Order: sequence, then C-alpha cells, then structure tokens
Amino acid sequence: MIIVMQAGAAREELARVVARVEELRLKPHVIVGTERTVVAVVGDERAADGRGFETLPGVASVMPILAPYKVASREVQQEPTVVTAGSLVVGGGRVGVIAGPCSVESREQILATARAVKAAGATGLRGGAFKPRTSPYSFQGLKEEGLRLLAEAREETGLAVVTEVVAPEDVPLVARYADVLQIGARNMQNYRLLEAVGKCDKAVLLKRGPAATVEELLLAAEYVLDGGNRRVMLCERGIRTFESHTRFTLPLATVPWLHARTHLPVVVDPSHGTGHANLVTSMAAASVAAGADGLIVEVHPDPKQAASDGAQTLDVPAFERMMDTCRRVAEAVDRRLG
Amino acid sequence: MIIVMQAGAAREELARVVARVEELRLKPHVIVGTERTVVAVVGDERAADGRGFETLPGVASVMPILAPYKVASREVQQEPTVVTAGSLVVGGGRVGVIAGPCSVESREQILATARAVKAAGATGLRGGAFKPRTSPYSFQGLKEEGLRLLAEAREETGLAVVTEVVAPEDVPLVARYADVLQIGARNMQNYRLLEAVGKCDKAVLLKRGPAATVEELLLAAEYVLDGGNRRVMLCERGIRTFESHTRFTLPLATVPWLHARTHLPVVVDPSHGTGHANLVTSMAAASVAAGADGLIVEVHPDPKQAASDGAQTLDVPAFERMMDTCRRVAEAVDRRLG
Amino acid sequence: MIIVMQAGAAREELARVVARVEELRLKPHVIVGTERTVVAVVGDERAADGRGFETLPGVASVMPILAPYKVASREVQQEPTVVTAGSLVVGGGRVGVIAGPCSVESREQILATARAVKAAGATGLRGGAFKPRTSPYSFQGLKEEGLRLLAEAREETGLAVVTEVVAPEDVPLVARYADVLQIGARNMQNYRLLEAVGKCDKAVLLKRGPAATVEELLLAAEYVLDGGNRRVMLCERGIRTFESHTRFTLPLATVPWLHARTHLPVVVDPSHGTGHANLVTSMAAASVAAGADGLIVEVHPDPKQAASDGAQTLDVPAFERMMDTCRRVAEAVDRRLG
Amino acid sequence: MIIVMQAGAAREELARVVARVEELRLKPHVIVGTERTVVAVVGDERAADGRGFETLPGVASVMPILAPYKVASREVQQEPTVVTAGSLVVGGGRVGVIAGPCSVESREQILATARAVKAAGATGLRGGAFKPRTSPYSFQGLKEEGLRLLAEAREETGLAVVTEVVAPEDVPLVARYADVLQIGARNMQNYRLLEAVGKCDKAVLLKRGPAATVEELLLAAEYVLDGGNRRVMLCERGIRTFESHTRFTLPLATVPWLHARTHLPVVVDPSHGTGHANLVTSMAAASVAAGADGLIVEVHPDPKQAASDGAQTLDVPAFERMMDTCRRVAEAVDRRLG
Repeated sequence: MIIVMQAGAAREELARVVARVEELRLKPHVIVGTERTVVAVVGDERAADGRGFETLPGVASVMPILAPYKVASREVQQEPTVVTAGSLVVGGGRVGVIAGPCSVESREQILATARAVKAAGATGLRGGAFKPRTSPYSFQGLKEEGLRLLAEAREETGLAVVTEVVAPEDVPLVARYADVLQIGARNMQNYRLLEAVGKCDKAVLLKRGPAATVEELLLAAEYVLDGGNRRVMLCERGIRTFESHTRFTLPLATVPWLHARTHLPVVVDPSHGTGHANLVTSMAAASVAAGADGLIVEVHPDPKQAASDGAQTLDVPAFERMMDTCRRVAEAVDRRLG
Repeated sequence: MIIVMQAGAAREELARVVARVEELRLKPHVIVGTERTVVAVVGDERAADGRGFETLPGVASVMPILAPYKVASREVQQEPTVVTAGSLVVGGGRVGVIAGPCSVESREQILATARAVKAAGATGLRGGAFKPRTSPYSFQGLKEEGLRLLAEAREETGLAVVTEVVAPEDVPLVARYADVLQIGARNMQNYRLLEAVGKCDKAVLLKRGPAATVEELLLAAEYVLDGGNRRVMLCERGIRTFESHTRFTLPLATVPWLHARTHLPVVVDPSHGTGHANLVTSMAAASVAAGADGLIVEVHPDPKQAASDGAQTLDVPAFERMMDTCRRVAEAVDRRLG
Repeated sequence: MIIVMQAGAAREELARVVARVEELRLKPHVIVGTERTVVAVVGDERAADGRGFETLPGVASVMPILAPYKVASREVQQEPTVVTAGSLVVGGGRVGVIAGPCSVESREQILATARAVKAAGATGLRGGAFKPRTSPYSFQGLKEEGLRLLAEAREETGLAVVTEVVAPEDVPLVARYADVLQIGARNMQNYRLLEAVGKCDKAVLLKRGPAATVEELLLAAEYVLDGGNRRVMLCERGIRTFESHTRFTLPLATVPWLHARTHLPVVVDPSHGTGHANLVTSMAAASVAAGADGLIVEVHPDPKQAASDGAQTLDVPAFERMMDTCRRVAEAVDRRLG
Repeated sequence: MIIVMQAGAAREELARVVARVEELRLKPHVIVGTERTVVAVVGDERAADGRGFETLPGVASVMPILAPYKVASREVQQEPTVVTAGSLVVGGGRVGVIAGPCSVESREQILATARAVKAAGATGLRGGAFKPRTSPYSFQGLKEEGLRLLAEAREETGLAVVTEVVAPEDVPLVARYADVLQIGARNMQNYRLLEAVGKCDKAVLLKRGPAATVEELLLAAEYVLDGGNRRVMLCERGIRTFESHTRFTLPLATVPWLHARTHLPVVVDPSHGTGHANLVTSMAAASVAAGADGLIVEVHPDPKQAASDGAQTLDVPAFERMMDTCRRVAEAVDRRLG
C-alpha cells in the first residue's frame, strides 16, 4: 500500500501516518521525493484495509502496490535512485565505472591496478578479498589483509572500494573497509546475508544469480531495502543458457526492463557476462547504449598471471580503449562516463 | 592424490602415512573400504610431489585424483555410500522415501501427515521450519516451534526428520532436532553453510541449484565432505530452462551420470522438479527406474490449504498410489522401496 | 469447435453436419470414437458462431475447443490413439521399440542390425537414408540406396521401417519404402514438410525441436493432422539447456504432460536425449516408467565404426540388457514392451 | 584447405590451380581480396593431401582451414564482406536498417510503412508474404500478392525488399520480387532451402534458430556459401532461455564473437529479440554499439491493428526516435547508420 502525502503536508502529519502504520504492526518506508512524500507500507496489508488512512490530515491518496516487490518499485518512487559511495556515482545520468582485479593478490598488484584504472577514468575499485570459490581447494582470497590493501589503495587514489561479502557474520568487518558491499551471484538468495547488509550503512551492489529471473532479483533487493538500506545497485552479470562460446549469456534487455519497473540503478558486468577479454569492450559499449548506470569490469596489470578469471580480464591498455569507446557512446545517449 | 594402503597394512602404518600428510600441511581423508583402505590427500598437492609416499611401509600405490572433486569421487571410494539416519536408509539397493509438507504449519497438520506417510511406507518426514522465501513478505516458517513439532512427529511415528537449515548460525539449533539437514537449492553455493554442516554429525541432503552444473554440485558436496561429514546425499530437483509448462525441468540423466562419478547416493525431488501434482507420480516412478536412491515428495492432508507449494503437493491417497507404483518399479530394477 | 453427435446418430445426420461445416468454408475432421462420434471444426470459427448446429438432427452438443491445437487435443478425442505401422504398435498399453543405426551404411550393417534388434524384441527398425547434417561437408546418407536396404531388411525380419524425410519433394520416394516417416528435430517447424506428410498415408514420427515448447510440438502435429493424417506419434528427444554433461537434456515430464492434453502417443529417444551410450538404458527404463508409448534407440553392431552418433549408440549386448530392464519396468506399470 | 596465390599471380596460374582442385573432385571457392587471392578447397580434403599444390606456379602457400565452417571463416577471407542489395548496404562501416511490418497486410499498409521508414532513414523494407506460423490456423500471409505489393513499394520508395522464403520450390518466385531472401529462424537448418538460396543470385539474410549455437549458424551459412552465393548476412534474433520477461533473450556478445571468426556481416533483430516495443530502441542502440552491421526492425503505422507481432512493433514516431538514437551511437563507434 502506498500512502501519498499532500504537497505541503506537515511533518507532524507524516509522523501521525507513520505512527498509525506501526500501530497496525506494519512497516512504514518513508520516501521523500522532490515532488511528493510517500509512505510505502509493507507487511500483511490486509490489516490496513479500510482503516481510513485517506481521511488522516495531510494524506492525498492511498493506493495498492501491484508489483510483488514494493519499496523497489517505480510505483513507490518515480524518481531514479542515484547511489553515491565516495568517488562512485551510479545513476542520474552518470555511468559509474568500477574496475579492478578479480582477487586482491598483493600490495603491488592492487596499488598498480588502482592507479591505472583511476588514470583511465574509473570511479570505483573492485577486488575480491573474500572469494567464494566453486572448489574448496581453490584460492579463497586474502581476507582481512585484502581489505586492508583495498583501503590503502583508496587512500592513495581516492577510488571507492567495492568488495564482496559472503556471510552475515563478515558484514561488520567488510563494512569497516569497503564503500560498497557486493553480494555475489551465488548469494543473491542468501536471505540472511541480504538482511545483514540491509541493516548496514554501506551501499550494496547486488548481482543477479545466473538462473534468477528479474523478478527474483527485485525481490532480493527488496530484502535489503526492507532492512532500511536504500543504496542498492542491481547488477546484470549474465545468465546460464545453452550457449557455450561465452561463459554466461549477457541479456542486456534487462537494463531497460528494470528501468521501467524500479528506481534502482542498474550496473552491468561484461567481464563475467562474456568470460572473454576480447568481447568485453563491445559489450561494455552495448551496456552503456542500453542505458546502464554503471559498469564493473575486471582489470589486471598482467591478466595471464591473475590468480583467478584471467581469461576475462582486461589489461590496462585494453581498459583505456574500453573507456574511450564507452565515453563516446555515453555522450551519444546523453550520459557521462565516470 | 590417493594413497592406497596394502590389503593387510597395520594400523601404525596408516597412522604414519596420515602423520606424513599432515606434516606437509595437507589434509588426509581416510576411507576404509571393505577391500582396501585409502587416504585421499587434498590441498595444494604440489607440496607432496615426489615426497616418497610410495616407499612408506604399508603403502600399495599412489595415484592422482583426476576429478576436480576429490573425496566425492569414485576414484577415491568405489563402493557406494549408504546414508542411514534413523529410519531412513538411502542407497545400497534401498530407495528411501522422504515425504511431508512444504512447511510445518501446525501440530495437527504435521502429525496427521506424518502418520499418513508412515502408513504408506515413507521412511523419512520432511517439513520446513526455516523457509527461505523469494519475497521478504511471505511466510518464513515456524522456526524453532516448527522443529519441535517435527521432533514430536518423529517420536510418535519413528520417521527420521529432514528439514532445511539456511544459515551457519542455525546449524546447532536445527541439528538438535533433525536427523537430516537439508541444504536448499538457493544455498547450494553458500560455502559457509556447507562448511558448517560439514563439521556437524547429522546427515546432509544437498539440493542442486537450478543453474548449477553437476560438477558444481559435486564440488559443493566436496565442501561438506572436506569438513569431515561423509553422510551426504545429493538431490536433483530440476533446473531452469525455457520450458514453462513445468516449474523446473527435471533432468533424470543426472542420476546415472552421478552414479558413474561419485559414491554418494542420489535422491530426486519430483515435486519441485515438476511443480504439478499430476506429474509427480510418473516422475517419481521414472526416478526410481533411472536408479534414484531416494525420493523426496511433498504431501499434505489438504494441499489446497497448504501455506506454500500447494500446486505440486500430493494428497494422501495420491501419495499412496505413488508408493504402490514406485514399489513395483523398484522391484523391476532390483531395488526395494522404503 | 466440437460438434458432438448423439449416440445413435444416423450416417446421413453426420453427413449433413459435415456438409454444413463445408458450406461455411470451414474444415470438418470426423473422429469416430467407441462411445461417440465428434466433428472437430477448424478454420476461422467465427464464421460458425450462432449458425445453429445445435439444432441439426443428430447433434448432441456443440462446444468450443479451448486448446490452440484442435484435432490433437483430448477435448476432441478422449481415447488414446494407437498408431500401428506394420509390426510396430505404439500406444494402448504397448510400448513399441524402434531400434537401429543412426545412418544406413551398408547392406551388411543394416541387415545385421535388423536381425539383432528383432531378436532382442524390437518392433521397428530405424536407419537414416537422408541425413540432415549440421555441416555441408558431412556424410549425407545413402539416399534411395539406403531406403532400398531398409526395405530389404524389413523383408527379411518383418520389422517396420522408420526413416527420416527432409523435404516435401522427397515424401513420395521415402513413403514408397518406409512404414513410418520421421520428421527430425530440425524440421519440426518446416510447415511445407508437415503438410506433405499430412497428405500421405504413412504413419509419422514427429520429433520435438530442441528449443520447441510442448505447445509448439502439438501445433506442429496439428499441421499433419489437419492434412488428414491421423497416425502421428510425438517424440521427445531432449532440449537445449545449459547442461553440457549430456548432449541434450531429456525432460521426461513431457510424457505425462502430453498424455493429459493429447490422445497422440509419445515416444522417447534416450539416445539423442543423453548423447552417451552408458546413460541410455537408465533413461529408456525411466521413459517407460514415465508412461512412454514407445522408444527409439540407436543400435549398431560396432558403435566405434558408426558413420555418425557413435558415442550414443548401443552395441547389441547393451541393447539386449536394455530390453530386459525395460520389459520388467513396463510390466511394473501394466504395459507390455514390444 | 586454403591455397594462397602469390601477389602477382597470373590469371592462368589461378585457372590451373582451380582445374587441379576439380580434377581431385574437390570444390574450389575463389576469393579475390584486395591483397591476395585465395582458393578455399572444400570436400574430402584427404584427397588433396600431398598433391603438391605448393609447387604449382603462382602458389604462395597452402594451409588447412581449422574452423569447421570453411568459406565462412576469417581464415579464408580476412576482409569483411559488405553485402549490397539495391539501396541496402550492410557492413564496411555502414549499418543498414531494414524496417517494416511483420506481415504485408494491404497495399495501403505496406506503402504507408515504406514511405515512413524511408523518410526516417531506413535502407531496406521488410514485410512477410509467406508467413511460417506456429499454428496451421493462423494467417499465413498474402503470398504472391504480398510480394507484388512489396515490389510496388520498392518502385515508389527505392527501398530494397527483404522478405522470407519458406520452401525451396518458392525460391524462384520470391527471388523474382525480392532483393534479399530471408531464411527464418525455424528454417535455419532446412538444408534443402539453404541449398536452394545458395544457387540463387539474391542476397540472403540467415536468421539464427532460437536453440542454435553460433557454430551451427556458421555451418548453416556454409551451406549457402558452398552453393556459390557469397552475399550472406547473419542475423541474431534471440535465443530461448528461462527468461520470460522478454520473448527471447538477445545475446549481443554474438556480434563481436562472430566478427572475430567470420567475414560475413551481422544484423540484429531487436524486435523478435525482445518481443516488447518499449525495449526495442535500447536494444537497437546496444546492437549498434556492439558492432552490428545492420538492424531489422518491425514497424507498422498502427501496431495495435497489426495482423501479427503487434506487441513488439514500433509505430512510426517511435521508429524515428530509434533512428535518432542509433545514428548518434553509430557515430560514436565510427560507423554510419543507413
């Protein structure tokens, strides 16, 4: 249910609406827009039926939320959400670029990469410290040491740090170092983890699982939003299909489809989405043309030596070329890269 | 690496091999078979190269494990694993049948279901107490109260309790009540959770994720096995494909494929695998014919009233018919149902 | 629209109904059942609205056909169709078994295979003479010479000949030699070909395309039925999914789903459906347990020497074992193999 | 096998090479590039092994073709093929735009559409006269009358006509009216049809089947090329996946992947690829950014009245906006629209 407040509603009127919602043991989400303030009410809304919100002072109208996702929906918030986290701006005409290695491997590696991607125009630094790996015998990341190195790279370059968190109990630790907490594709429906980042004050990058529908992605985002964290970015990184010439199939129609249904910004990952470095630039440019609000790209000073994901990782000159192309395409669709 | 001990190797010889493996900071998994004892060595095996295990007393031979999964592979253990958990036996010619509602809803519901499925020949009772739900606004289960009711149903009927655990921190609680910990499809690659159940003394039912390859399923099982828990059952419950007339596509060729590569038993879930009650019996029978070691089936005294998954849930008479058919098919392939 | 005739309707009454349908430039399909005769009317049915068929003598009732496929639907014909073609019987409690090589390669090969599969209980002989091949540079079949060899094998063994036809202009030639015309998966939506076999008096085995929905399969069958040929068998042979450990993914829930919606019998091809000989027997048994009315299986005296599809082809002893298992499973579900 | 001629090889030297290839009952395809002339030799190449082509006068070198497709491969022809058909130019830095209705419905409809898309910058006119339809009871097109109307629209507007041909026997008729013969997705592996258009002098637009791999698409193109017709355009129009919010999933990474392996130009169909008019512009722009050499888009003066595919069809103002966006994106990637 959405309770739309009148244009000039008083603060106390809003407070009374919120209090009434809470009395009914429902959850109010207040969304302050430039034009209007609304209260999205979630929970078992049958409790609220016919409870006369329409007649409370300051209330303009009351209407149902038709989408299964509530706080994420355009019905509740028409203006696009712009997520800002340090140097990174995603949405609102800005195409944020998060670049860096799959895994943090060493101080030299992460600092060199950070400097290079910053120089090329990136606005965020990615790098895995806690790595969820398909095999228990693969390299699992440098853990806290990796986080420290990312923070050091931020200090030097100013780049916002984007890194994955894989378990609820790690959220406080990772949040101490990171600007953006990434929820990986394998954990898109790890609800405890979503709840944990929902209660945290860091921005969240939520990756789509490779078999998740777009509705499931929005409902996963809803777990985070319902926890109170509004700084959520959705990330398309490819789905599992019969195609084997690419690592995943990257379905860019997701971008305009999501834009029509949610105010949350959409980031695309052309590295995982293709699995091959020689396809990344084309698909990054295509993502920007499709309306993506951000890109997340794997870059390494020496991809052949990368501890993981080398085949899909750009070297620095290739990343610079990618940025040049994407910058021009962004302008062609009235946006700005970086 | 597999170190195969000689037929009559002494206990001390085995101990010396294990100690040597640990000195190299590798992990030994001792598998005592009826014919031979082997030590599966996992970790960065390069450390062990040329370290002369062949010449240790009691060692028959040393060979590499070719599969990416190690302890799960047939190379390491040729005899099929039979998982026993209370009344439930899965594997070794027995086709265990786990039946019950999607969610535990009430004392009456779970007790009535338990009695009915027991009478029809089920050997395990399923029922969700902690429910991972796509939407944060859906019913999330009775939690500990649900576990208590399941334990009560076991006391009355003798049926082993199979129930899902969704987070590492819940493992001790769920393990206090359950005989088998189920890892749901959404959590197949929640590695912290796999590690937690790997250190637990309860059997594990590991469901395949809807976009997971069979290799990924085996590598997920490897996380549990590597933690020391050998009582792992794999569960095929359907994959995401373009087909929309069924909820998922149930690919039964998984059963013989897995049997050729792993000693772990394979359970099939025809309820989630089809999504429609009227397809369940045929697919349960097909699963048994394909060689499944177990079935997990949703049954409810009144499916139309079920809190979740009603469309795919059998009522009691339909379950009885399913059991009759499966019993005959099991005999036709020289197995025994229940 | 279905016009249901009264139980004792006179021949002239039926004729009058048919004439009236034709006057409206619609197409009548008369289906004579054991209990009732119906006239399925297809075409732009709006022409028939309110034209008073209900009041014609001998008419019991008139109702719409809800399914998009008409003549194929259970609404039009409740009794299952049993397709008989020479020695082959598919449906009605009989599980027909069509076996033979992918391609006819030589007189020796096809005769040896025919004798062996006949001895093991097969009731039909498969063998490709016109081979649709992915590459223009692959072996394209022996063409008419292959057809002649198949006919010779029939003469010796009595087995019905099942062989593919790939173009409308070949239908008369292939129909001269074959008992069943196979439409391959690539041609499931080659409508001219479907129309051509629809006008032919040979039975048709219609294979599902690897990306076709089950509704599309039924609509493809409708092209054949609408042409007047009622002896149509549907064939599930696997779909394209992300799975790569099998050649295709074989979704057996298709079998009961189709049985609920169509009277046409359903054949399963576990050879193409898995792509690996060691998975064929399990999946053949599973198909029978799922209710399949027939099996089509690749068998070759020496699979390693086969001109095509060797990896998925059974040798004769493996086929004999498959038949033993399937015979027992068929009995367990009250059917008879062969 | 590729026989590379020397830079200044004489016409007679080339003729001698060709004659020698034919003597060996192999097929020579002479490809005259700006830098070098090569002879691609296809057939059972073992016949040619060691036959001393290297020593023939004018021959620079001989090498194997590694790809399974031969004439289609970059190995045989490094320079991109530019397909020209009347007003339509596809490739070589030009992004051809083929627009028009799904089906030709009437003189007014096709003329109005042709004028409008021409004015907006389209260079080709699409429109179905022979419509392959999933149901035998759907509108199957105006057939020759539709072709006549297309030709009339060409006369008035100058737009090249692109229309589908569905059977080998129709090729002469359709070729009489059309500039480009379209092979629809359902017929991608209708080899007789591919052979028929391979012998025809009209350009061919070959659509990818929804379950076809990219290798299969190239091998289908090879059937056309091997017939002697070199003017082949490949068309990505979406694949079948589990996604249901779009009609198909449009995998744009196909574009750079194909460009790396074949010299044939690549056209994208964002109408079928998404199934929703409101997603078409974004995906058209993304296609151009990904490097597409052409677009094929459904446009109708009044999409709600369209006989088929209305939901995915742009009206004229939407098409004009699409063209504006694509024009700017094309410039950003150094190409020219139209």
